[in-house]
Amino acid sequence: MEKLDVAVVTAELEQMNGWTLEDGKWLVKKYKFLTFANAMQFVNEVATIAEAENHHPFIAIDFRMVTLRLTSWKVGGITKLDLRCVAEFDSAYGRFQSGE
Amino acid sequence: MEKLDVAVVTAELEQMNGWTLEDGKWLVKKYKFLTFANAMQFVNEVATIAEAENHHPFIAIDFRMVTLRLTSWKVGGITKLDLRCVAEFDSAYGRFQSGE
Repeated sequence: MEKLDVAVVTAELEQMNGWTLEDGKWLVKKYKFLTFANAMQFVNEVATIAEAENHHPFIAIDFRMVTLRLTSWKVGGITKLDLRCVAEFDSAYGRFQSGE
Repeated sequence: MEKLDVAVVTAELEQMNGWTLEDGKWLVKKYKFLTFANAMQFVNEVATIAEAENHHPFIAIDFRMVTLRLTSWKVGGITKLDLRCVAEFDSAYGRFQSGE
């Protein structure tokens, strides 16, 4: 997987909801849930996706808020794999009621 | 639950392994695992304990490392409930092989 230009990543993120690019190499998003139990169910779905893709985000669970941070270490930036994974995370989130 | 003196908390932590007190009000520990799957299993056990005690740590999952941070918001410090919870988290960790 090759590293994508920041401009390409930024254009892709504009098609999505809530993802930001930090330091040109981290995709970051905060998800809010109605309950801690929902947050944990989501984290387990994220873990399943991460294992299937063999690509693991950093996950922070702050009660009903989950923050995901993803990068491609080997290339020091964002690849198509990262973009595919974040789309899958968003798809999983779509099955929950938002805690916003 | 009343807030415990820092000296009392520090003395309790000396009986335990790996817990530190930050800013006088956060109990913090990093746990290492052999696999991401083990880390996730542990996090699910922590979540079960947290729901049972109705007391939730902040949880960070960085691949095979899990960091827990716990405080008692209402009193702005550490209570007996925090100490009981961290003992339960350690007990759950004892069922995993360490990734150290």
